[in-house]
Amino acid sequence: MVGPKHSCGIVGMSAENNVVPAIQKSLMIIQHRGQESAGISVYNSEGAIDTVKDSGLVQTALPKHMLGKLHGTVGIGHVRYPNAGRVSRSYAEPLMSTTRYGPLAIAHNGDITNFDQLMEKYLFTGSSFFTNSDSELVTKILSKHSAQYEDPVKAIKATCAELDGAFSIVILMGDRLFGIRDPRGMKPLCIGKIRDGYMLVSESAALDALNGELIRDVMPGEIVEITPNEVKSYPYNINAPKAHCMFEWVYFARPDSVLDGKEVYHVRRRIGEILAKESPADVDLIMPIPDSGRAHAIGFSVESKIPYEEGFMKNRFAERTFILPDQRQREVAVSTKMNPIKSTVNGKRILIVDDSIVRGTTLKKLISMLRSAGALEVHVRVGCPPIVAPCYYGVDMKTREQIIGADHTVEQIRQIINADSLAYISVEGLIEAIDLPEGDLCLACVSGKYPTMIPGEVHRYQSTLKENF
Amino acid sequence: MVGPKHSCGIVGMSAENNVVPAIQKSLMIIQHRGQESAGISVYNSEGAIDTVKDSGLVQTALPKHMLGKLHGTVGIGHVRYPNAGRVSRSYAEPLMSTTRYGPLAIAHNGDITNFDQLMEKYLFTGSSFFTNSDSELVTKILSKHSAQYEDPVKAIKATCAELDGAFSIVILMGDRLFGIRDPRGMKPLCIGKIRDGYMLVSESAALDALNGELIRDVMPGEIVEITPNEVKSYPYNINAPKAHCMFEWVYFARPDSVLDGKEVYHVRRRIGEILAKESPADVDLIMPIPDSGRAHAIGFSVESKIPYEEGFMKNRFAERTFILPDQRQREVAVSTKMNPIKSTVNGKRILIVDDSIVRGTTLKKLISMLRSAGALEVHVRVGCPPIVAPCYYGVDMKTREQIIGADHTVEQIRQIINADSLAYISVEGLIEAIDLPEGDLCLACVSGKYPTMIPGEVHRYQSTLKENF
Amino acid sequence: MVGPKHSCGIVGMSAENNVVPAIQKSLMIIQHRGQESAGISVYNSEGAIDTVKDSGLVQTALPKHMLGKLHGTVGIGHVRYPNAGRVSRSYAEPLMSTTRYGPLAIAHNGDITNFDQLMEKYLFTGSSFFTNSDSELVTKILSKHSAQYEDPVKAIKATCAELDGAFSIVILMGDRLFGIRDPRGMKPLCIGKIRDGYMLVSESAALDALNGELIRDVMPGEIVEITPNEVKSYPYNINAPKAHCMFEWVYFARPDSVLDGKEVYHVRRRIGEILAKESPADVDLIMPIPDSGRAHAIGFSVESKIPYEEGFMKNRFAERTFILPDQRQREVAVSTKMNPIKSTVNGKRILIVDDSIVRGTTLKKLISMLRSAGALEVHVRVGCPPIVAPCYYGVDMKTREQIIGADHTVEQIRQIINADSLAYISVEGLIEAIDLPEGDLCLACVSGKYPTMIPGEVHRYQSTLKENF
Amino acid sequence: MVGPKHSCGIVGMSAENNVVPAIQKSLMIIQHRGQESAGISVYNSEGAIDTVKDSGLVQTALPKHMLGKLHGTVGIGHVRYPNAGRVSRSYAEPLMSTTRYGPLAIAHNGDITNFDQLMEKYLFTGSSFFTNSDSELVTKILSKHSAQYEDPVKAIKATCAELDGAFSIVILMGDRLFGIRDPRGMKPLCIGKIRDGYMLVSESAALDALNGELIRDVMPGEIVEITPNEVKSYPYNINAPKAHCMFEWVYFARPDSVLDGKEVYHVRRRIGEILAKESPADVDLIMPIPDSGRAHAIGFSVESKIPYEEGFMKNRFAERTFILPDQRQREVAVSTKMNPIKSTVNGKRILIVDDSIVRGTTLKKLISMLRSAGALEVHVRVGCPPIVAPCYYGVDMKTREQIIGADHTVEQIRQIINADSLAYISVEGLIEAIDLPEGDLCLACVSGKYPTMIPGEVHRYQSTLKENF
Repeated sequence: MVGPKHSCGIVGMSAENNVVPAIQKSLMIIQHRGQESAGISVYNSEGAIDTVKDSGLVQTALPKHMLGKLHGTVGIGHVRYPNAGRVSRSYAEPLMSTTRYGPLAIAHNGDITNFDQLMEKYLFTGSSFFTNSDSELVTKILSKHSAQYEDPVKAIKATCAELDGAFSIVILMGDRLFGIRDPRGMKPLCIGKIRDGYMLVSESAALDALNGELIRDVMPGEIVEITPNEVKSYPYNINAPKAHCMFEWVYFARPDSVLDGKEVYHVRRRIGEILAKESPADVDLIMPIPDSGRAHAIGFSVESKIPYEEGFMKNRFAERTFILPDQRQREVAVSTKMNPIKSTVNGKRILIVDDSIVRGTTLKKLISMLRSAGALEVHVRVGCPPIVAPCYYGVDMKTREQIIGADHTVEQIRQIINADSLAYISVEGLIEAIDLPEGDLCLACVSGKYPTMIPGEVHRYQSTLKENF
Repeated sequence: MVGPKHSCGIVGMSAENNVVPAIQKSLMIIQHRGQESAGISVYNSEGAIDTVKDSGLVQTALPKHMLGKLHGTVGIGHVRYPNAGRVSRSYAEPLMSTTRYGPLAIAHNGDITNFDQLMEKYLFTGSSFFTNSDSELVTKILSKHSAQYEDPVKAIKATCAELDGAFSIVILMGDRLFGIRDPRGMKPLCIGKIRDGYMLVSESAALDALNGELIRDVMPGEIVEITPNEVKSYPYNINAPKAHCMFEWVYFARPDSVLDGKEVYHVRRRIGEILAKESPADVDLIMPIPDSGRAHAIGFSVESKIPYEEGFMKNRFAERTFILPDQRQREVAVSTKMNPIKSTVNGKRILIVDDSIVRGTTLKKLISMLRSAGALEVHVRVGCPPIVAPCYYGVDMKTREQIIGADHTVEQIRQIINADSLAYISVEGLIEAIDLPEGDLCLACVSGKYPTMIPGEVHRYQSTLKENF
Repeated sequence: MVGPKHSCGIVGMSAENNVVPAIQKSLMIIQHRGQESAGISVYNSEGAIDTVKDSGLVQTALPKHMLGKLHGTVGIGHVRYPNAGRVSRSYAEPLMSTTRYGPLAIAHNGDITNFDQLMEKYLFTGSSFFTNSDSELVTKILSKHSAQYEDPVKAIKATCAELDGAFSIVILMGDRLFGIRDPRGMKPLCIGKIRDGYMLVSESAALDALNGELIRDVMPGEIVEITPNEVKSYPYNINAPKAHCMFEWVYFARPDSVLDGKEVYHVRRRIGEILAKESPADVDLIMPIPDSGRAHAIGFSVESKIPYEEGFMKNRFAERTFILPDQRQREVAVSTKMNPIKSTVNGKRILIVDDSIVRGTTLKKLISMLRSAGALEVHVRVGCPPIVAPCYYGVDMKTREQIIGADHTVEQIRQIINADSLAYISVEGLIEAIDLPEGDLCLACVSGKYPTMIPGEVHRYQSTLKENF
Repeated sequence: MVGPKHSCGIVGMSAENNVVPAIQKSLMIIQHRGQESAGISVYNSEGAIDTVKDSGLVQTALPKHMLGKLHGTVGIGHVRYPNAGRVSRSYAEPLMSTTRYGPLAIAHNGDITNFDQLMEKYLFTGSSFFTNSDSELVTKILSKHSAQYEDPVKAIKATCAELDGAFSIVILMGDRLFGIRDPRGMKPLCIGKIRDGYMLVSESAALDALNGELIRDVMPGEIVEITPNEVKSYPYNINAPKAHCMFEWVYFARPDSVLDGKEVYHVRRRIGEILAKESPADVDLIMPIPDSGRAHAIGFSVESKIPYEEGFMKNRFAERTFILPDQRQREVAVSTKMNPIKSTVNGKRILIVDDSIVRGTTLKKLISMLRSAGALEVHVRVGCPPIVAPCYYGVDMKTREQIIGADHTVEQIRQIINADSLAYISVEGLIEAIDLPEGDLCLACVSGKYPTMIPGEVHRYQSTLKENF
């Protein structure tokens, strides 16, 4: 897939020494999860929480001279993906507030699906809201429950019991650091050991950059608390059926991350191999759509024994367009971003491998460019089954209008993009590549069956889920 | 007095047509009340409130291209004075939120003196706070009471009943616009008629600029609601003793404003006349400290029949230092801001008139400069009695360390500043000049007796006050 | 006069110690001469010239952290007035270059009237130009002559011999510092002694701020060179007739400056006195147009024995509009800038004194505002004779279209602005107030006779001039 | 090679319609040649040249609202690489000036090696210089010769005859557009046909993005002039020996460009094949250093029949560090930029292919990371012979201190970087891969023999060269 299709990224760290440099480095490692804004909060030596956050990439939003003023041994960080209509500095996280438990900062990855119901409930019981962000809602619910519970863990549990949807959250509460994962484990969050403490982070790749070690994932339905010396577990709903977002492996996550026990590069390469078995093609060479399709394409090449070539030059500068906030709206033509390498393409039968197809518009143009450059045939293989339904859990494909697969058959799509052949991996093939039970995955966007109640959509009934909620 | 000693300024407007240009103009007229930040909120045609606000002067914070996107027939505005330690974009007002009553924006001028007690109370009943601003506190209390009252006026009354201190507030609640003044009327707020509606504003000068007409002041202890066609009054505590801040007439307000029935220029000129009677001097000429001492000096000159001269050149550019946020810390020497005009000063016995003395450091330097320029004698007259006690109601002299009069006699001050003579207007003289009953004025900073309970300070007991609170 | 009508300001300093702070302070003192850009160049210890310059006020363009990197014992500075159509960072001065004499920086105040002829001449002999600024032209001519003269003073003399018009220039040539004044002395430039060296500056007020002492003016037609210990003089054309711009005393210069031996405040006050004699009026009070008319009004009041009052509140924030570069275009209505003080004005016969009238539009609005505020009569006295002809020497009134006096009689103007009476000081009165021989003044804008050859205009023939040029 | 090692990029275009959008697009396509600044100049309908330029990437430096104001049918563009010590806005190009021929703009790619001699010569004949840029020098020489020649082509020829070193230049002279290439053709410049005109550009890839067609390269020693309808040729020194920079094919240029008849991707892939023949290795997989080593690695994989894998995750956000000007200095650890993919690396014997080695520091860290990730062996193959000598022609390796190969043997380097084996392509192999005569290439950095006279370095004597210069 070409173009942005992201989520957010979160970090939490508790250590013997100042955590700011390590949190900053971690945020750079998971920068791909969100380029809209970045922020860090730490608990300082005077008992308060300091925050630096702004719109932009980590290196812009968190400049050295600002980070130099932050100091603390426990803290959290966030990179934000620009949800449509919420592009504003006021939405940069962590979100700070003062509650009965003292200063508090929160960073969130996911989408609370019962947001509207909860907001209405709390408005009518005397709350007011400055934003319409999930993080403020979570803060407000948590502070409401604080009136009742002296123990913050109880208040967090009571809060989680009200939330529905996908959420991985880190909470800095004074000098205490909590991590939460929703009962289905839809968004990733793992626990790592670093030299002088422990950390929580959306993707394990950040641990490599810090010479840390992956301990385990936070369990779905678990609250953890980390200190420099230990990881405490407060399970609140760990028997619900899982629903890990399969798209993390297909596209979101870095290839060098390990999510819920499965390394992303390995999954993608296996997707390519399975694709080659399921839908072989008689071509001269295999080409990826850079950068997201490379692992899939290599897998296809190895399995099919057809040579792998880089046939597109990707302009890494053009891509930056959407990252600089004031340029986000600018259209940069596909021809500025990608150019076929003629000597590779000319006179060849080509198979291109992409990770997924959402709209299909870019792919159509790329195929046209390949033909102009002399390609004899252009075949397409896709590492994700046809996307047919919207995602309500944080992926930027929220309406059927954005999704070509919602109302076109594969053959229709093939004609639209003008490919000589088009094949997607099967759902079974994808499950085999990820190597987790089907029941543990969220496949809503390719099956139309949702793991939570979404008005107007089909609910994937699973008995355990019902009992627990 | 030389140097910043300000408050905030607020505006509210309800009219037949778009109010944004008129609110912006009003904010420019009351810009002297606050240069830290500026903001405007309006209720738009889609039922939401839009806000533009930023740090800086009105012209910087509210640029044309941003205001062009704001449109509404009812709205509020704010200019903010930079309270120490709260210099941050998050404190720019109006403060927007969503409550049971729908979208809400609030702008505030004053200081809630029981802030800490109220914050603690609400934290323990389940509220959380993003800032430590008075406006958020008011918003939170108001939203709490909203759970109980369907009628917002009742919730506002219940809110006001909890607040202590000085406050003038405008609240935009959906398409309804309320103005509030504290029961003592410490901060100004007046009602004006404009061509196609009504407005609320801190100072009447804004009405002149809009070709409007001053109707009356909001009564102390009154809530008003304005529409394009009428002013509704909801008194909540109008019998409490008044305590209008005398410093508004002495220094804060524009000379062309009329506050609680008294025109500021006229009061200042009368202060000069009374000073001339109380403490005459045998000098060759009367000179103001520009710009704040001019009206006082003209009054002194007219009464004493001693010629008025401009003996200081004030550098209007140097003064801007403290306004540009990133330059606020920079020290600009007095000699850059002020320079004596030698031909005026040389060989003369001079009397300089200033509005007030807080620290006295600048005055000392100015006297030294006059002597260097050849002045034979330098006498000082001050349009405000000796300031001896801090202000807790929003004026930037919060500790006795900042106030030379707190621990020095007039004679000691005269020696420190090296004047040939030094005299202040008497308290009685000041009251005469303002022409309001002593009991209607807050004279805390010159008397040490406070109109509200301030821990560690003397409370000016007034029986009515007790009964009403 | 209300509104901008400025020139540039220049400084040069050679001392035992780092001159950067003192140059910066001097630029702040002469900031009124130009707000478009500011810059400082110093010769550093490594034999190069370093420059900091940018658009904006001194405090914006020359921020502390940048000036901290500048260090040298000899240097120059500049503040620039925004000439129409030349508003660009590339025009900030000093202008640096490398010539045969090594590194060179130049700062200029004035207008070279034979610019076009000189540019064409040099283009056809192999020069190229990056800008169309006078300073680049001077640099190019100077470097051309450098090929011929080893002694830079000879090259400067040869350069000056080619220039016509108004120019005061400072040149930093390696570690040597030169000052130049055109043969007529149209623009000011004076020499001062400071604690550890000497300085050149457009206005003597800067010397006061540095505790310096005014030595003398640079003579018209003189080149001076200053070192920390002495002032060397290289006269090149000192017998030409003088033509000091009378507008410096009327409006441009600070009241506390002394130009060519005459203190500005004193001149303005005398203008008021003479106006009162020439054109008395039966009124209740005298009011200045702040800030520029104050000294004139005080003179009028003292002579006429009619009370002086401040009847306009001037909004010092609104005025800033034209200073912030990105806001320059914005129209701020007169009513935002000025407001009558009703108690002063109501029911009175008023005489307002302004320094000069160029367009008359603002004055018309102010008179209308006074009448609305209740003034019974409004009389106008003007401290400069009717301006009837353009200025080609650096004042921003370059075409007759901009000048109401060019095609209207005084009576017509009175009707247009709707004054009860209107009188200007006579040319003789102005000359008497300045107290210099008529032949030493440039009166072109009020007489239409120009001291230099201007195509299409009348040349004020003076025999000495002819012989010398 | 990892890290920046760039040149500049230039464009010129003459067409029937507005060329600004097409020039901007071309600059984005050649953005990799310089990220320091960008600029466009066009000849407008009023006979002047307008320029927009600023520091930053094309999308930052040339924002839409600025480009919207540029309009012309003939123009030039430039992207600049940040030479050490010259990072300043004043160095952004095109450089505009006015000469005898009217308005002129120039954009330059290369390094004039006799800069100092020429500058001294012209200083002593009356020129002055504002910068020390090659482009200003060229402008000054050209304008000097303009005094002599009415025909600008003669002046350009006379200018080129004085220049030594590497230079490709586009000159906009009023509405005429010239392109120049130095007599050795060290820097690329090609001619393309677009829909409604002709263009000159550093790399042919820009033609693809515009649906244009590569006509031919500008000949070394040729001046061309393009109009919408034709290409005129004015050869001035076309018989000198060629010296095309081999590094363009190895690293600089985009893989999809064709330089002097040779496609870059194809050359790189052949380098990999030749490397595999010259220095085979018994390993499990071939891995590129992304992104620059991919084509080489694929060539190696195909020739050696050893599988190709992506073993490094490159963080495309970390890389941006050096591009944002205020962040350029920041050190981002290699571990933030690159992370090994464990499943690919663990337990494997790995061969990594990089395009070249200059310092070797990054490579050392990458090898260490591979070993930590479980690699059994790490072998290195390099697509460029050992770099042993500095480049004086525009590549950022100007001193022997920056070059590990200048004073270490291959075996020493192998030990330093801790590789199991290290091999470079031979010079013969490289020449074979490029497929041009050895005598047509500049191999100075790998041979130490320079095609032009460089004081202190060995001159590669070639008889024709001598005769022609």
